[in-house]
Amino acid sequence: MTPQTKATESKAVDATRFDPAMATAGKAEADTRWLDPSEGPAQMSGFAWFDQDRIYRRMPATPLEVLPQSVDSLANCTAGGTIRLRTDSPRLMLRVELRGPARMVHMAPTGEAGFDVYIGEPGAERFASVTKFDSAQADYEVTLLNVERRWRDLTLHFPLYQGVNRVEVGIAGDASVEPPTPQIDEPPLLFYGTSITQGGCATRPGMAYPAILARRLQRVCLNLGFSGSGRGEPEVARALSTIDACRLFVLDYDANCPSAEHLQQTIPVFVEILRERHATTPILVVSRVPSALEFDRPDGDATRLERMQAQREAVEAIQTAGDPAIQFLDGSLLMGADHYECTVDGSHPTDLGFLRMADGLEPVLRQILDS
Amino acid sequence: MTPQTKATESKAVDATRFDPAMATAGKAEADTRWLDPSEGPAQMSGFAWFDQDRIYRRMPATPLEVLPQSVDSLANCTAGGTIRLRTDSPRLMLRVELRGPARMVHMAPTGEAGFDVYIGEPGAERFASVTKFDSAQADYEVTLLNVERRWRDLTLHFPLYQGVNRVEVGIAGDASVEPPTPQIDEPPLLFYGTSITQGGCATRPGMAYPAILARRLQRVCLNLGFSGSGRGEPEVARALSTIDACRLFVLDYDANCPSAEHLQQTIPVFVEILRERHATTPILVVSRVPSALEFDRPDGDATRLERMQAQREAVEAIQTAGDPAIQFLDGSLLMGADHYECTVDGSHPTDLGFLRMADGLEPVLRQILDS
Repeated sequence: MTPQTKATESKAVDATRFDPAMATAGKAEADTRWLDPSEGPAQMSGFAWFDQDRIYRRMPATPLEVLPQSVDSLANCTAGGTIRLRTDSPRLMLRVELRGPARMVHMAPTGEAGFDVYIGEPGAERFASVTKFDSAQADYEVTLLNVERRWRDLTLHFPLYQGVNRVEVGIAGDASVEPPTPQIDEPPLLFYGTSITQGGCATRPGMAYPAILARRLQRVCLNLGFSGSGRGEPEVARALSTIDACRLFVLDYDANCPSAEHLQQTIPVFVEILRERHATTPILVVSRVPSALEFDRPDGDATRLERMQAQREAVEAIQTAGDPAIQFLDGSLLMGADHYECTVDGSHPTDLGFLRMADGLEPVLRQILDS
Repeated sequence: MTPQTKATESKAVDATRFDPAMATAGKAEADTRWLDPSEGPAQMSGFAWFDQDRIYRRMPATPLEVLPQSVDSLANCTAGGTIRLRTDSPRLMLRVELRGPARMVHMAPTGEAGFDVYIGEPGAERFASVTKFDSAQADYEVTLLNVERRWRDLTLHFPLYQGVNRVEVGIAGDASVEPPTPQIDEPPLLFYGTSITQGGCATRPGMAYPAILARRLQRVCLNLGFSGSGRGEPEVARALSTIDACRLFVLDYDANCPSAEHLQQTIPVFVEILRERHATTPILVVSRVPSALEFDRPDGDATRLERMQAQREAVEAIQTAGDPAIQFLDGSLLMGADHYECTVDGSHPTDLGFLRMADGLEPVLRQILDS
């Protein structure tokens, strides 16, 4: 007999009734000044075509060529978007209108559709707070910080897996705002890839691996990860290549490709398209992290290793053909020997997996940026 | 002007349309044999009063004294429950009837209301899969594994933050089941505490810190964490003390207490009650992990250190009074110097924070268990 609960106990358990720290945050106070992050003195980054399109989107609204439908849709996810400002406000509020409510099963709504905020100048940023909102709703207004009045640099991250129609940042009515302390004055780093690149399944936006690297390297990191849809299409490469200036391209799209052959064929074409406008910009090709179930499969890690080797050879062929500004990195080792504990579902990293990825990538990226 | 989306793009972004790995898993196949985990040969643990009450609950259904209402309700969350079995089935399915659907904002539904499964004998368990279900529903039926036919030990973890009315494990109709390979033959370790102990906010149940320690120590770890409600009440201590046998008590309830004085007053009483039936069982008192915002507060970490000191002194007083089987551990250092990156909201650890906590606790617990 399967055990049954007693009738008197059949109701859902609601931890938020008993734990204030689990409840959603209250609405903003009356004396609040609302700022549009796209207008100064706050600075926004992550949406490379914002100046022309005026929407929170990761690809051009009207690309020269038709994009794959999935890329076109997922470009509206705001992964990698940031708002930076300097303020003496003792309060920080957010008013957000999403494209839709959170609904993923293996990602917290805070990561899928929430914002988080870090306090501190570039190089000294520390996580401070995350939006606690009613995740059944597509709109929310929440208080993020209640702190002592002093000047602080704030960095807010946009949601990873939902779109944002509108966002406003609220500060105390009598507080001042300034542009943030400048980061390193270089063009952004661009990360092209999969759901893993996009940040699935971090618990909050600041823990996607490009966001961790942005803090450590003190540079803007554009997130061009497309869940299930990073497949190295030439039309996507052509859209990406229209970015004015880029300090580094990271190509991390192995996990979404159907085969080693697909990688062999797409990498040379993708790189050639980028090279038309970015002749000497460093490019780093990264192969996929392991899947948890490899240890249990009859062919083990053979498929992943075959794809890894295909990418290594594709990069070496480009180097041999006279392009020294491209490198390959084996992603297999990024998450460590206990990589199987680092994902929520066998393939998507948790905050644990993302920190490991950033730990592994940081020295490689530093070497490229310093050379 | 705040940017508006174009009318043609106003729909919610749905990554599951484009990424099969993000979608929910299909229903079980027809030729499935359904097992009740409370009947052999599978073995269930985590519900210390199951034999008398026949419900998935962490406290007695009819305790001798009335429990605090919140503890009584949260006891129905199934944190720490496990099902272990050995089977040659190439498929593993689950049929679950929850007390209510997932709805937390800073925890993935997979952690709040899902199950995960590890493959391997004690000491060699590796995470394999998690339930991908429709998180708007309170019931689900999902496929967890599709693998080669061979004998495997499987360990499934119950949800951390919701109740389970019914659960059945499905295997292929022609597969066999045996009891699992035995763990170390000792009574369970009991962890009493807060939402952090309960597993908020792990992405999946196997990443709550007591579950990580259960794998590493190859022992049953009972999870008696009560979100917002771990306050060291004597009636809770008396209920816990009715557990037949216990190898170790961990008291980790600092974060839910209102003050240092509350800890000073409750620890001696709580320990005295446990000692009535467990005179020489080791007890470890652990103070809370840091809050992210301590670095920004005028009083910094003073409040946490005061409470830490109160607990240290309470433990030392009990030792001085002639009880050598109690120890204190400063929880401040468990999550490391960058502890502020290890939580989703400044207080609840992510999988990253939980792994750090387990890393710090493991050698201390090993020393106690080996001595």
